[in-house]
Amino acid sequence: MGVMTVMRHEIDEQPEALARTLDALLPLRSEIARLAQGRRHVLFVARGSSDNAAIYGRYLCEVLAGRPAGLAAPSVATHYRADLDLSDTVTVCVSQSGETAEIAETQAWAAAHGARTVAVTNVAGSTLADAADLALITQAGAELAVPATKTYTTQLAAIAILVDALGDQRLDFARVPAEAARLLDIDVDAAAAQLAGAHDTLVTGRGITFGTALEVALKLEETCLRPVRGLSYADLKHGPIAVVDADLAAVLVAAPNGPTVEGVTQLAATVRERHATVIGIGGDVAFAAQCDVALPGPDLPEELAPLALAIPGQLMVEALARQLGLDPDAPRGLSKVTQTDH
Amino acid sequence: MGVMTVMRHEIDEQPEALARTLDALLPLRSEIARLAQGRRHVLFVARGSSDNAAIYGRYLCEVLAGRPAGLAAPSVATHYRADLDLSDTVTVCVSQSGETAEIAETQAWAAAHGARTVAVTNVAGSTLADAADLALITQAGAELAVPATKTYTTQLAAIAILVDALGDQRLDFARVPAEAARLLDIDVDAAAAQLAGAHDTLVTGRGITFGTALEVALKLEETCLRPVRGLSYADLKHGPIAVVDADLAAVLVAAPNGPTVEGVTQLAATVRERHATVIGIGGDVAFAAQCDVALPGPDLPEELAPLALAIPGQLMVEALARQLGLDPDAPRGLSKVTQTDH
Repeated sequence: MGVMTVMRHEIDEQPEALARTLDALLPLRSEIARLAQGRRHVLFVARGSSDNAAIYGRYLCEVLAGRPAGLAAPSVATHYRADLDLSDTVTVCVSQSGETAEIAETQAWAAAHGARTVAVTNVAGSTLADAADLALITQAGAELAVPATKTYTTQLAAIAILVDALGDQRLDFARVPAEAARLLDIDVDAAAAQLAGAHDTLVTGRGITFGTALEVALKLEETCLRPVRGLSYADLKHGPIAVVDADLAAVLVAAPNGPTVEGVTQLAATVRERHATVIGIGGDVAFAAQCDVALPGPDLPEELAPLALAIPGQLMVEALARQLGLDPDAPRGLSKVTQTDH
Repeated sequence: MGVMTVMRHEIDEQPEALARTLDALLPLRSEIARLAQGRRHVLFVARGSSDNAAIYGRYLCEVLAGRPAGLAAPSVATHYRADLDLSDTVTVCVSQSGETAEIAETQAWAAAHGARTVAVTNVAGSTLADAADLALITQAGAELAVPATKTYTTQLAAIAILVDALGDQRLDFARVPAEAARLLDIDVDAAAAQLAGAHDTLVTGRGITFGTALEVALKLEETCLRPVRGLSYADLKHGPIAVVDADLAAVLVAAPNGPTVEGVTQLAATVRERHATVIGIGGDVAFAAQCDVALPGPDLPEELAPLALAIPGQLMVEALARQLGLDPDAPRGLSKVTQTDH
């Protein structure tokens, strides 16, 4: 142990980064609403961790704001140059650096096909921010560790504000930073030890917290260099449940409340019946009781829980990397600005 | 060997099943066009293998017919009961049995929210078919092996006809059954042997053939009971490339032509540089040259190639299951009618 990793330091910065981002972007809600006026569809464009943030945005848009939303397939723009009429659409391009060429190219294509464009990025003045109709600049500060942590959770905050601006109900963001701070003190050693001893790892979740599950899976894979499968609850029930056995550690991410908790709790029981180890993140008391190791999540409404729910997963991944003798700050094979085609 | 498995028999039936399905559904194109008139968006609803067919449909819709398309998140309907206005949307619900409760429930929700509804199913008179505005009944015949093969490729045929009806260009389906038949004779033993010896398995592809890659991954997982990751080309480049090493067998699925072949060929080279084994399916001569083992694909335009491109993967999976001493017809833990929540 001794010296704190940069990744851990950046995990710890999240309550302040979230508070700064909320302060900066909440005043833009009326501008967002104006931009989106008369536009019925929302199309998110992203890759990697940003894509996991976009998946949260997609559910939130449909559930909270009642607007049909989806995820773009960038190759439709960059490789097939499809001729779509996007005059009823707002695109939301999400990129930490604002310099991912594929995302910038897709944004330009969308604008040329009639879309209004919002960029969510951590870098003011980036290619993506400058070209968008409206840029929502997250206030994470410079992120030095390769695995995204505070840039990811602040993207979620920006997206939640965007969706809040599109709908009629107002979300209450006030308790988000404090709930994030509370989760920094949890003990993740038992969870990391379970993962260290597992042969296979799978991460799943459902609905509004599904993106969190995929983000924990990606973090495990890129930081701990393990093959990890991130699956939806339903897709797991539809086939791959056949490969659940004693060699498997299943990380189940659950919302603290809402209509998906019961099903994920049932899934935890099913997975344990098959002798796999269940590590739970979040959920309620009944969910925690079904897990071999349960990490607490935030006490927030389901709609906002993802802004803090990744933190136990981030801490677990950082601890596991150290247990495995890896450097969580600089996993092999990853660079900070991701480019799909170069 | 000796007795032929039911799965192998059903793989072999695909040329005829495709021909029957094309004959039955091509005459419905004007009816499809009428139903979709004035509807700008297409929303696919599916799970499991049907979801992999829907992913093909999504790309094809956008690339070929110029209509924005996406994949529904069923929990938005079944759990969150979101209030979306779908009066500009055609939904395409895909289910082999037509009895998957979650899909039928989502179709009813979509209709109640203004969507026109098309069902793609193998069972006339099923719940899904009866409730849809228009049912496209695939002509696969009864499928007895648990892993879907002919019901999957005939779904692709139905979806290609649907998209053909929505666009201005006409696809030429005439050579599809013969190209499917040609692929039944290929030798997959070397590919199966490579997979048998690998510690980790990953399947990837891009664009119009991405759904094929996910289907091969699902088939490997559910039939051979192996943890397999199905990843997009871009997502692999964005992080998990870090976990590519000599323990890995990567199955790369490539279109025979079109704008994505070059990138997937480059990926094959990158993966081999990292000492992983590359099994290629489809692609062109340059792609095959980059693979350790290359299985041929169909000689069809990229837009229709998926209707036959899964066949080498199906054969490889069936051979691998037998090599592993498993029964490909009845993998453990799977039933034929999938239900997410029961």
